[in-house]
Amino acid sequence: MNRAHLRTAAFVSAFFAAHLSAAMLLPAIADLFQGNDDWKVFLASAMVIGFLSVLIMLATRGPAPSFTPRFGFLIVNCLWLSATLVGALPFYLSTLHPGIVDSLFESMSGLTTTGSTVFTGLEHLPHGILLWRALLQWLGGIGILAMGLLLLPLLEIGGHQLFRIESSDKADKPLPRMRQVMALLIQFYLVTTATCFGAYAALGMDWFDAVVHAFTTVSTGGYSTTDASFGAFTGKPALLWAGTLFMLLAALPFFMFLKAFTARPTKEILDPQVVPFLGAFVFATFFVALGLELESGTSFANALTLSAFNVASIITTTGYAAEDYTLWGPLAVGVFFGLTFLGGCAGSTSGGLKTYRLVIIFKAVVSALQKLIYPHGVHRMTLAGRSVDAGVVHSVLIFLAAYILILCALTLAVAATGEDLVTAFTGVLTALNNVGPGFGNIIGPASTFADLNSPAKLILCAAMLLGRLEILTVLVLLVPRFWRG
Amino acid sequence: MNRAHLRTAAFVSAFFAAHLSAAMLLPAIADLFQGNDDWKVFLASAMVIGFLSVLIMLATRGPAPSFTPRFGFLIVNCLWLSATLVGALPFYLSTLHPGIVDSLFESMSGLTTTGSTVFTGLEHLPHGILLWRALLQWLGGIGILAMGLLLLPLLEIGGHQLFRIESSDKADKPLPRMRQVMALLIQFYLVTTATCFGAYAALGMDWFDAVVHAFTTVSTGGYSTTDASFGAFTGKPALLWAGTLFMLLAALPFFMFLKAFTARPTKEILDPQVVPFLGAFVFATFFVALGLELESGTSFANALTLSAFNVASIITTTGYAAEDYTLWGPLAVGVFFGLTFLGGCAGSTSGGLKTYRLVIIFKAVVSALQKLIYPHGVHRMTLAGRSVDAGVVHSVLIFLAAYILILCALTLAVAATGEDLVTAFTGVLTALNNVGPGFGNIIGPASTFADLNSPAKLILCAAMLLGRLEILTVLVLLVPRFWRG
Repeated sequence: MNRAHLRTAAFVSAFFAAHLSAAMLLPAIADLFQGNDDWKVFLASAMVIGFLSVLIMLATRGPAPSFTPRFGFLIVNCLWLSATLVGALPFYLSTLHPGIVDSLFESMSGLTTTGSTVFTGLEHLPHGILLWRALLQWLGGIGILAMGLLLLPLLEIGGHQLFRIESSDKADKPLPRMRQVMALLIQFYLVTTATCFGAYAALGMDWFDAVVHAFTTVSTGGYSTTDASFGAFTGKPALLWAGTLFMLLAALPFFMFLKAFTARPTKEILDPQVVPFLGAFVFATFFVALGLELESGTSFANALTLSAFNVASIITTTGYAAEDYTLWGPLAVGVFFGLTFLGGCAGSTSGGLKTYRLVIIFKAVVSALQKLIYPHGVHRMTLAGRSVDAGVVHSVLIFLAAYILILCALTLAVAATGEDLVTAFTGVLTALNNVGPGFGNIIGPASTFADLNSPAKLILCAAMLLGRLEILTVLVLLVPRFWRG
Repeated sequence: MNRAHLRTAAFVSAFFAAHLSAAMLLPAIADLFQGNDDWKVFLASAMVIGFLSVLIMLATRGPAPSFTPRFGFLIVNCLWLSATLVGALPFYLSTLHPGIVDSLFESMSGLTTTGSTVFTGLEHLPHGILLWRALLQWLGGIGILAMGLLLLPLLEIGGHQLFRIESSDKADKPLPRMRQVMALLIQFYLVTTATCFGAYAALGMDWFDAVVHAFTTVSTGGYSTTDASFGAFTGKPALLWAGTLFMLLAALPFFMFLKAFTARPTKEILDPQVVPFLGAFVFATFFVALGLELESGTSFANALTLSAFNVASIITTTGYAAEDYTLWGPLAVGVFFGLTFLGGCAGSTSGGLKTYRLVIIFKAVVSALQKLIYPHGVHRMTLAGRSVDAGVVHSVLIFLAAYILILCALTLAVAATGEDLVTAFTGVLTALNNVGPGFGNIIGPASTFADLNSPAKLILCAAMLLGRLEILTVLVLLVPRFWRG
């Protein structure tokens, strides 16, 4: 790590903080319209952050150093941490006075598109705060798309090297190509958000609800405008189905759409993740609906609507709740617990283990079993017809190992703060997978994270960051060699 | 798979069933002494099984086929399944009439040295049944030592190839060498059991309790003679410490002792598992004792005794309980939950992930982090000064992956039978790791597995077998190629 790297990391962080401060003007306007005094908070925050950001940018500008993996890791971590601090400021200064830990938690949960909240009585909160929460998720969503598409494949994190856009990505200066892909990505994200807004508004949400939910749907974030979350709309099944559709869309690989634009062969466009992901969705929806019908005696059509929405919400790691599904009987609870691990496809805004990793893990185990039977046989692993090299498999298995170690270590840490085992384990699980709701009385889908103790909230912040940045990206900071000159 | 393999598997299973039927004479004698009518059940079972076994042996004798991995897998699975059926027979026919599922559960839990029980009111059970349960664990313990020492390294299961006794193990006919090691092993096991019995008897157990607990300590099984388990002896701290000592001894690698006899260099004798394993024990004991002292206000000395015993019981996967540690506060519960994953050292009777796997997983993650920082650097992984080859690391990571997949799949299956999530998850966890007690109201350390529904019990039987045979050994049976001629 040399000075040029640290300087450039500070510059990039300030550059994005300046954008974030500009985004604060939107909630300021919303509050002004609604006649809420917090518009001053948003305006003041925007000015202070904007001014500081420009100062830092001026102080740290200079030629960009050549790209190295260490530099990439540094940038990503700095970006997410500085954005979290900036995002927390309006919460902290607002008339809600949530305190510093809660402000950080809400900001981190927003930017990582987790969607766990410490705020209650959402329906009574000013529009500015609600919009800011949604904006954090929407901007976090773009951030994660860019990172997953452009940076993680270069850094070879957890098998992401599978998703190099083209082999020239390995070149030292991928920046021009990055700009081009990024522009396409943002266009696509904007169009999807606008379409989602249109659908929600047409199907019965008022315009503000439609904006917030469009932002938090396409980012698979899950922040809502009421404590009931999408449960406020259970009387409108079409709205639930629209939510289901857009959540699933947001959890599909954006690669696929980009590739469709760049006219690649059809086989490569049908990303090998799509079929298993949608298959898991259909399978889980059917079983949960069946269980719900038997448990509650509701009609199968109604059970199917509720089941599809909630399954989509968890499997895409969005985290809306349209009912307390932990009351739908043990099978449903088991399925939702399993889904909390899964996550969507790589190259989307969703979190979790991700579909391609599960496919590779499953295939690696089957391949190992065949090798046990015939030790001298040749066992090639393929994905969508292309052979997967051993390095990718190793990366994926290492990711799983790191995931399990972190899950256990953080569960122990949260338990040590005095929370019960179910809260500790499912809290860390839901944070690490950027899902949103946990299990149990405290953090279940019918509650919030407000009642957790502060150290536990901070540990969950760490878990959200780890999960969002694919774990290893954060863990490298703990290796002493990372910091050597 | 050809006829010679199937024939020989039947022969070997019958050979061990004949030994098991001979062992039934011990509980018959115990019942006769105590004046309990069940002596007839044990005698009749012994005669029927003995007769059938000899018949099958006569029908299937012949030259042994050459050793192949497939043949090894077949033998191990046949042995454990046939022994479970034979072991269940006396339970089923006894005056307790536990039903077929409970009989199978108790037999499987015994032979896999898990120690979960469906029997309650143990203090009122006839001596014959109590002795049979203990004998199943003790014999299961020898079985698992032999398998871990002789067969698993050949089959290259989950990194066990690290523990080849010498390179000539790869030869086609390892049988003469196996016999020699086996004889040493049985001597050692007998001496340890006798010493444990002596210690227990000297420190205040009556002779029958001392026999049963010696059998179930050295096998890290955990069946007891009262529902209170070792809790019946909390008034005698010396006895708890003796139990702690022998449980730890039983979870150390037997390799180490064998190597000490064969005069290897000291560095190799100090197995690389021993220090991390004992370190984890000391660390966990200290924290749990601290938590217990704060929670209950007992003296630190008393807290240390209770903590050491219960930590040893879980980390060695024995599963005795000396108190309901789920009432010792959230930190203790978290630690015990974490310990349920760990397990003892490879080459012992204990289950779980095993110390060497955790060490390798941890080192693999650290090595991967360094490779992320310096992609072109050379990163050698060593264990006790010797480099670990990539094949071993891959085997260990595959084992972890299979472990997690099975844990999730079976949790879902148990939840589908209608058990709550905590019971389903911790039940499968404790079964897969051959520990014994789970968490929650139904299967916690203060309860038994009696109240579970029958399908759940059968799924847990499968989990115990999978865990005991290191998962992959059982999963190969599901690969269609395994059965081809």
